[in-house]
Amino acid sequence: MSDHASQKATVTPGNLNVLLVGQAGPDAGSLLAQLDSLGYSFQLAATPEQALLAVESDAPDLVIIDATAPDVDPYRLASHVKQLNFERALPVMFACLPKDLRAEIDGRDLGIDDCFAKPIPTDVLAARIRLLLRNRDLERSLRQQNRDYDLLNRELLQARDVLGRELELASHIQRSLLPHEMPQLDRFQFAAALRSSAEVSGDFYDIYRLDETHYGFYVADAIGHGVPAALLTIFVKKGIQTRDITPEGYRLLSPGEVLTRLNRDIISEKLSANPFVTLFYAILDVEAASLSYASGGHPPAILLPTDGPVRPLLSDGALLGIFESDFTTGDVTLGAGDQVVLYTDGIEQARADSGKVGLDALLEYLAALPADAPRDAFVTLVEGALDALITDDTAPQRRDDAATFVLKMVP
Amino acid sequence: MSDHASQKATVTPGNLNVLLVGQAGPDAGSLLAQLDSLGYSFQLAATPEQALLAVESDAPDLVIIDATAPDVDPYRLASHVKQLNFERALPVMFACLPKDLRAEIDGRDLGIDDCFAKPIPTDVLAARIRLLLRNRDLERSLRQQNRDYDLLNRELLQARDVLGRELELASHIQRSLLPHEMPQLDRFQFAAALRSSAEVSGDFYDIYRLDETHYGFYVADAIGHGVPAALLTIFVKKGIQTRDITPEGYRLLSPGEVLTRLNRDIISEKLSANPFVTLFYAILDVEAASLSYASGGHPPAILLPTDGPVRPLLSDGALLGIFESDFTTGDVTLGAGDQVVLYTDGIEQARADSGKVGLDALLEYLAALPADAPRDAFVTLVEGALDALITDDTAPQRRDDAATFVLKMVP
Repeated sequence: MSDHASQKATVTPGNLNVLLVGQAGPDAGSLLAQLDSLGYSFQLAATPEQALLAVESDAPDLVIIDATAPDVDPYRLASHVKQLNFERALPVMFACLPKDLRAEIDGRDLGIDDCFAKPIPTDVLAARIRLLLRNRDLERSLRQQNRDYDLLNRELLQARDVLGRELELASHIQRSLLPHEMPQLDRFQFAAALRSSAEVSGDFYDIYRLDETHYGFYVADAIGHGVPAALLTIFVKKGIQTRDITPEGYRLLSPGEVLTRLNRDIISEKLSANPFVTLFYAILDVEAASLSYASGGHPPAILLPTDGPVRPLLSDGALLGIFESDFTTGDVTLGAGDQVVLYTDGIEQARADSGKVGLDALLEYLAALPADAPRDAFVTLVEGALDALITDDTAPQRRDDAATFVLKMVP
Repeated sequence: MSDHASQKATVTPGNLNVLLVGQAGPDAGSLLAQLDSLGYSFQLAATPEQALLAVESDAPDLVIIDATAPDVDPYRLASHVKQLNFERALPVMFACLPKDLRAEIDGRDLGIDDCFAKPIPTDVLAARIRLLLRNRDLERSLRQQNRDYDLLNRELLQARDVLGRELELASHIQRSLLPHEMPQLDRFQFAAALRSSAEVSGDFYDIYRLDETHYGFYVADAIGHGVPAALLTIFVKKGIQTRDITPEGYRLLSPGEVLTRLNRDIISEKLSANPFVTLFYAILDVEAASLSYASGGHPPAILLPTDGPVRPLLSDGALLGIFESDFTTGDVTLGAGDQVVLYTDGIEQARADSGKVGLDALLEYLAALPADAPRDAFVTLVEGALDALITDDTAPQRRDDAATFVLKMVP
């Protein structure tokens, strides 16, 4: 049993290096003889100074301080050696006279690892040394594991920070690509909100003037979220074609035509891993106060009249980027005070105090403002909608990007 | 000194819970009296079964096994207790008869932490217990640190994996946005290569047919690399306008005009953090065998004739996205066998066996192929250029994305 356990120590007798501190008197001599008989290497330090020097330069595996040696303050030396070799977990023993209670007690309280009375049977000394080395090896290996973990940890944190700054910059760029300001029209107001589940978003919206009397706008949702989705949103923003060149100049494409072309465009890029986009696209005719619209697999926009039931603006069209497909264009004439609410399915995370959830929570929230509220109040309300309705305590795996875009006809 | 050190242990006498294993004989009685006088809580287990049960249910701070107790195999019990409480670092002591060498030796080799002969002075027992608890606390805290690190590392690795998969998908998408195949023309050949320093790239190239006789192509380099740069490359790809609507239909924009519009477009987005792009844009007229070109702060393309000196295709133009600026269009007529080499500054990492570096290494590499080599050989050569010239041993902080696009007029 002894043999088995002793082999566990990384140090075998042959290369064990013991530093014995004390004068080379008869007592030290018998200890040295014991260490020698055990096959250990050893050296003798007569003074504390020699001892500290030897500890520093020779890195012994074990220090035995002869507490009976004159001119050596064993407590001071032990304390010094332990402090200097904290990380190395260097074991220190006292060899003392039988019944030296001070050595037994104060030595241990000072940090030494064992204290034995001379003379000690050689095999007991060996067993005590094995125990100390076992403890030392355990402590060292735990400390080494900690250092290894710490190193890996630092590398991971550093990589995370680098990528974090990158994503933050990407987020700035993507946010910059949202409309800087909404068109200021007499009869219509626009406002929008976007809430990302990560630095960059798969949800996106845009609005632009098409000609004297028409404005195009949309809400898009690229599959998934994060970086790949963000790439797709820019693809959509910059890839949407809104007009066709004709012999007479140009003509505006209908929402259905816009989606047909965008769909073909995404398909033609043969994007790997089949990413796709859903999108609700609308064109507002400010003269006619009418809206034409099309959906590429996107939840229908909601017409929210000043009174009367809400009505989804339905139209046929598959999500974009998978199959060649047709997209129908729907039309609706707006009345004074009507709101049209575009949104992405991230709205499912919404929870209102009233108990309503998802889209219902959003519609209730938007309907709360009087139809004749000033533009600023409308904009502030819409821009705050998602933060008001979606809390941060959604489980991470259920978090999604969310966006809403609201058009209101001034009453 | 004793008092001070003893306070370091997390367990104070008042709440120290000692399990003493052995029959309640006179010996055990005196040990119990000592523990009691030290203010420790204690309980007695008469049999190994009771001892194991008490260890499990009461989580003592220390186990003292009376090795003199009949009906208890102290070695077997100690081994069992230590094994079951490895992670808890539960200290185990033997109380034995004086000169019980087997207990002193085999006990320690079996894993106990200390062995003392009865009777033992109470304050020595206390000091020994304090030492064991100190060791236990150290081991526990090191193990706890390891567990904490392990947990944090797992979280970091998991986050890294999630982001890694995201970036891989983004990389697929971005690669998909490179030309799927080059135009197949009788008199001209095209080939390109791109090498990313990260999953996604800030370098990009594209080529497309503009009309019956014109092809537009470019190499772009968005500032930095990684995700923000990748977003900009898509902005550029989808944002480039190549034609103008006119009363007669349309006209192709010159390279200088293309860059003027793209520059305005990027500026108008008011991208945060001032990201910018450099780009070399060219239009090939396949009938006239002429090239018109413009540069937005990009290294000039190189005209590499079959013989004669290489010539940079210089033109004026600042990098894109910072200031309103004009971009001049240059022109050159190509001869049979001529190559035009577009590249990004990542080529600076190139090292040829000949000792040439950077652009010189690339030009030497491209000039090595006979002018009348078949198209496949040309394409293979160009596509392998960056992998051949840029090694993976570039220091990470010096790695950059690199791209080259080569046009060759068939001799």
